[in-house]
Amino acid sequence: MAVPTDLPSGPSAPRQVSTYCPPSGWGRRSSDSMISSGVTGASSHAASVAVVADSPVTPGNTSAGTLAERLGRSPDAKLVIISCDDLGSCHAANVGVFRALRDGLATCASLMVPAPWSLHAAGEARADDDLGVHLTLNAEHAVYRWGPITHAPSLQSGEGGFPRNLGDLWEHADPDEVRRELRAQVDRALAWGLDVTHLAPHLTAITLRPEFFDVYLDLAVDYQLPIRLPSTVSTEQAGFPFRQLAIDEGIVFPDHFDHDWRAGSRERVHEAVGSLRPGVTEIHVQPAVDTPEVRALTASAQGWIDDLELVTTDPLLPRLLDEQGAELIGYRELRTAMRDG
Amino acid sequence: MAVPTDLPSGPSAPRQVSTYCPPSGWGRRSSDSMISSGVTGASSHAASVAVVADSPVTPGNTSAGTLAERLGRSPDAKLVIISCDDLGSCHAANVGVFRALRDGLATCASLMVPAPWSLHAAGEARADDDLGVHLTLNAEHAVYRWGPITHAPSLQSGEGGFPRNLGDLWEHADPDEVRRELRAQVDRALAWGLDVTHLAPHLTAITLRPEFFDVYLDLAVDYQLPIRLPSTVSTEQAGFPFRQLAIDEGIVFPDHFDHDWRAGSRERVHEAVGSLRPGVTEIHVQPAVDTPEVRALTASAQGWIDDLELVTTDPLLPRLLDEQGAELIGYRELRTAMRDG
Repeated sequence: MAVPTDLPSGPSAPRQVSTYCPPSGWGRRSSDSMISSGVTGASSHAASVAVVADSPVTPGNTSAGTLAERLGRSPDAKLVIISCDDLGSCHAANVGVFRALRDGLATCASLMVPAPWSLHAAGEARADDDLGVHLTLNAEHAVYRWGPITHAPSLQSGEGGFPRNLGDLWEHADPDEVRRELRAQVDRALAWGLDVTHLAPHLTAITLRPEFFDVYLDLAVDYQLPIRLPSTVSTEQAGFPFRQLAIDEGIVFPDHFDHDWRAGSRERVHEAVGSLRPGVTEIHVQPAVDTPEVRALTASAQGWIDDLELVTTDPLLPRLLDEQGAELIGYRELRTAMRDG
Repeated sequence: MAVPTDLPSGPSAPRQVSTYCPPSGWGRRSSDSMISSGVTGASSHAASVAVVADSPVTPGNTSAGTLAERLGRSPDAKLVIISCDDLGSCHAANVGVFRALRDGLATCASLMVPAPWSLHAAGEARADDDLGVHLTLNAEHAVYRWGPITHAPSLQSGEGGFPRNLGDLWEHADPDEVRRELRAQVDRALAWGLDVTHLAPHLTAITLRPEFFDVYLDLAVDYQLPIRLPSTVSTEQAGFPFRQLAIDEGIVFPDHFDHDWRAGSRERVHEAVGSLRPGVTEIHVQPAVDTPEVRALTASAQGWIDDLELVTTDPLLPRLLDEQGAELIGYRELRTAMRDG
């Protein structure tokens, strides 16, 4: 995916704690949201922040043990999800993602329901594909647009479709419209016959703002689906304990996920696989075949094309996985574990 | 463009008078619309049907002479507009249409504003390109979707975006929502900096129903733009005198236009050019380059690709035009003539 231009301090900022600066108004809006959420009683997640803010966060764990143990593995097992983002975004992505799933090392993908090629992707899906919904509130490409599937004026940009970047979205998005839109995206994927295995947010748009995280968590609870959460952003950085809130609701998420938006993932993936820790690690890629469409779509096309080569033909990736004794898994296993309690 | 599956009696039916059967309810709904239009006073076009229905129709003519004469040519001049439909619909169409305009015989094109690649097309446009708005209320492709840019529940299909075919559209479309949507499409094209030269309807959706034709004509009047109207559908077939209504409002349209939806236009274009009559003849094509995107998009892709070859490399087309003594023109000339009165 393209790098939003308005990130707090560069696309990799969340990884660099010392330079991480929340956007202007972040703290105030978070507090407002928490207060109003408690007053209206619309959702209890954010309202519980004051109570749990200092609780120890043990991601993916319950009294039943670590997530790996809940999945029937030993606690020191290294389990790796290789997930493909942006299925449905364009034709090249659809071909690339299914190739990555069927001929490569990718284990799951998430579908951008409002994007132009989503119905094509749904039609190509097989029953055993491990597919989630890529909850989408941005259309980041300058020359290629998509927009909400519900009536959502606050989610429209002036140029047509969703806003291009997170700043624009966050300044205007009405949480009620976000809720209705994202629920419709999940419902439509289900209506298309997909056995939705998980939820993941496009560009992390709904993860790091409490008023939108509330919606994300409600969807996970209502549909009983595991979600993607970054492990590289702390409670202090986010301003609210998003991981603990998910744990409190019984929502399962991978132990390790670095939401690095840089296009072209080869170096990042090699590094991540070479330094795996015990537990479930999610690594995302964005595979696409090399076509005129994707080349015209984004300057990041080369990175996407390289992602497909990385998970299908790169000799180093399987060797690193093997050296680590890693096991590839998908989100469907996490869903089963979560639903089994 | 793909052939709608619900045409009265096949895609070429309007050319075959003896087999032309209006869809069920056509007459009743037309009458209802005319009555209600007169009562509400929303527009006077349809309400005037009873008065003008038997008037002689002299398309493109005024007291100033034939359309050719208004364009400064002799009355027996053969003037040909070669127009490209579906600019903005996909990447392959954008590349194909601009190639047809700049390296081929095409003289103008019309932009599908709600389609995913429309902003890309607008960005590629030059000031001297002769571009209109392809007023769009359908998304006919099964695997590739786009939808209204305004809040228009009656213009949505159950599968996301505009309905696929005309029958579905006509059964559900609310004329007020049609009006708001189509006005927004023109306004957005203008906001993108296009010097809009004309209006043309996608799939003839708004031409042959009086309640939607009313909107079409109002837009032409309000923006003072020439429009595309079929010359191969009679007043009796349509059930209302659409051409006379346009003339009464001072709207200019080509004398001859056959709205044949068949994909792959080579034979149709050769035939039309080989039998040109005096006056302005519009011939439409749908050029696209041959890419995986367009091949996945529609079974009609081969026809679109052939259209590009037809207007760029076919040796017969320029020879036929030359034999006929034809002159190629665009819609911008018609707009000038219309605005000059």
